[in-house]
Amino acid sequence: MALHIALDAMGGDRGPEELVSGAVMAAREYDLELSLIGDQGQLGAILARLDKPSTRIHLVHASQVVGMDESPFDAIRRKKDSSIMKAFALHKEGKVDAVVSAGNSGATLAAAIKLLGRLEHVSRPGIAGIFPTLKGPVVMMDVGANVDCRSLHLFQFGVMAAAFSQVLFGLDRPRVGLLSIGEEGGKGNVLVKKSHELFQQSSLNYIGNVEGRDTFQGDVDVMVCDGFVGNVCLKLSEGLAEAVMGMLGEEIAKSFKAKLGYLLARDAFVSFKKRVDYAEYGGAPLLGIRGNAIICHGRSSAVAIKNAIRVASEMVRNKVNDRIVELLSLHQPLVQEDDTLMAKATVSEVIP
Amino acid sequence: MALHIALDAMGGDRGPEELVSGAVMAAREYDLELSLIGDQGQLGAILARLDKPSTRIHLVHASQVVGMDESPFDAIRRKKDSSIMKAFALHKEGKVDAVVSAGNSGATLAAAIKLLGRLEHVSRPGIAGIFPTLKGPVVMMDVGANVDCRSLHLFQFGVMAAAFSQVLFGLDRPRVGLLSIGEEGGKGNVLVKKSHELFQQSSLNYIGNVEGRDTFQGDVDVMVCDGFVGNVCLKLSEGLAEAVMGMLGEEIAKSFKAKLGYLLARDAFVSFKKRVDYAEYGGAPLLGIRGNAIICHGRSSAVAIKNAIRVASEMVRNKVNDRIVELLSLHQPLVQEDDTLMAKATVSEVIP
Repeated sequence: MALHIALDAMGGDRGPEELVSGAVMAAREYDLELSLIGDQGQLGAILARLDKPSTRIHLVHASQVVGMDESPFDAIRRKKDSSIMKAFALHKEGKVDAVVSAGNSGATLAAAIKLLGRLEHVSRPGIAGIFPTLKGPVVMMDVGANVDCRSLHLFQFGVMAAAFSQVLFGLDRPRVGLLSIGEEGGKGNVLVKKSHELFQQSSLNYIGNVEGRDTFQGDVDVMVCDGFVGNVCLKLSEGLAEAVMGMLGEEIAKSFKAKLGYLLARDAFVSFKKRVDYAEYGGAPLLGIRGNAIICHGRSSAVAIKNAIRVASEMVRNKVNDRIVELLSLHQPLVQEDDTLMAKATVSEVIP
Repeated sequence: MALHIALDAMGGDRGPEELVSGAVMAAREYDLELSLIGDQGQLGAILARLDKPSTRIHLVHASQVVGMDESPFDAIRRKKDSSIMKAFALHKEGKVDAVVSAGNSGATLAAAIKLLGRLEHVSRPGIAGIFPTLKGPVVMMDVGANVDCRSLHLFQFGVMAAAFSQVLFGLDRPRVGLLSIGEEGGKGNVLVKKSHELFQQSSLNYIGNVEGRDTFQGDVDVMVCDGFVGNVCLKLSEGLAEAVMGMLGEEIAKSFKAKLGYLLARDAFVSFKKRVDYAEYGGAPLLGIRGNAIICHGRSSAVAIKNAIRVASEMVRNKVNDRIVELLSLHQPLVQEDDTLMAKATVSEVIP
């Protein structure tokens, strides 16, 4: 039987049309059933306008929408019939195999954890960001779900992202690095130093501390950090890439010769943009939950949505959660032995 | 009398020749006395080779060099006659007004704090990174001196960087933002939330939380973060800018037409590179010490060194430290009232 993916068709900054278009593309390209969750009238009208809508696309009505700026916790408490909540409710009931959402990411996270719960052994589910690099993709975890973490959490992020990388990218022994401010193990803040000790004792292919400049070189497959640092990195990268292209554009616009040159080199710019486009993986998988979910960028294009649907189906088909639980179980003795992992006072111990 | 700047002429990845060239350029362009600290024979030979060495350049012998990868604390304990230690010793004795170093940055920091001490009211000196943006420069503090911080420290980084921004860039009320993962004050980790409350009560032109994507837009003059986050951002930015140019270069190299286009647009690329070049400010000022110091990138070019010497002299001439102490004094009541600032247990309070 074909896998069945639910799409929160109301979220995102570009409106439902873009999301529905992505779903239609996915239905044509992949062997999948799709449920679009949202206002049935609105979504039906969009589907009718699109050329040859697939018979494998189903509409599921949800009367409410969570705004992009709404408080996640208020939203999941008060809007029980929102498209996000409905999508995860369907997942919980086993009617769909995964959820894709470009809506309020905090609410998506909260709804997933509330309705699906955590996988065995998982202390904190987290969001895995996938970055393009000069070589292959690098998975950075956590990129925003957990802003205050302990070493146990960072360690588990590394294990979960490694499992994801194995299953999705076919890497046997993904190289796991700990994001820090120097390559030596002694460098970093208290959290990183404690996490480093834990990774060193693990059976992961741990390559030690890595620095921000290594992120885009492609010499590491999994980068571990807390959700505050990861989210700052994610947004800084977006901002810098935009600023670089903006400044370059301004300089090119200053002379006719340069503009002509740009036109000639245009194909190279287009391939470059495609290469660094986050849309290739569509979004960031939420790992550690009893289910499968992809959190997409609010500005996701139809292509990004299509790709997120593909990645979600690959996560289900390749049983990424089984691999996560297996790899976490393997490391349970290590985690249980170390009582200090959950001990109170981390920062306060070292700051005079 | 002309100001007198000491240059650690042995540090950096490019060797003394590059550093000495920068000093010679500075001596020609600015009304300054310069002391080059390091191996007298080696530096003398380099100076002799350079065209028309200035009579305002003095050599001060130091028999030791701190390696780029040496442990800072070991280095300042064991290598009392290193070029870094000697430079700060001269500063302490009042023989020079500022120190510029492209050597081991940890050792530079440690030597500065050990020999010069902290300014009045300063809890933790920090490093202020200066980033180019689409508009003016943005000062980010701390970019690496303090990896584990409390809200008091972040608050003081904001005050010190604002004082620097006022004095160096002539901004009357620099806009101060707190680097976080959402623009609302309620977003961020425990440290950021506590710091936000403090900034809100201050007389600074505090614009609230800012995100990584705002860094390069130029809509904020001072960005506050702890030294771990700041250092990760610094290195990520470097890495991303290199990767972007690398990937773009690879795409351009693929076709003759694109290569031709690049040649035509070459001037635009050159102006762009100049615009984003960290060399414009030469390095990162160390703020909060009883003295003036600029920590330069290990890979600094002669131009970067020349510019760092200029910025160091401007810091002295414009009395940035007086402004720092004045602005900190103004906020002392705020800091003293709040007993929780230095209280133990921050992370542990909220993580179950």
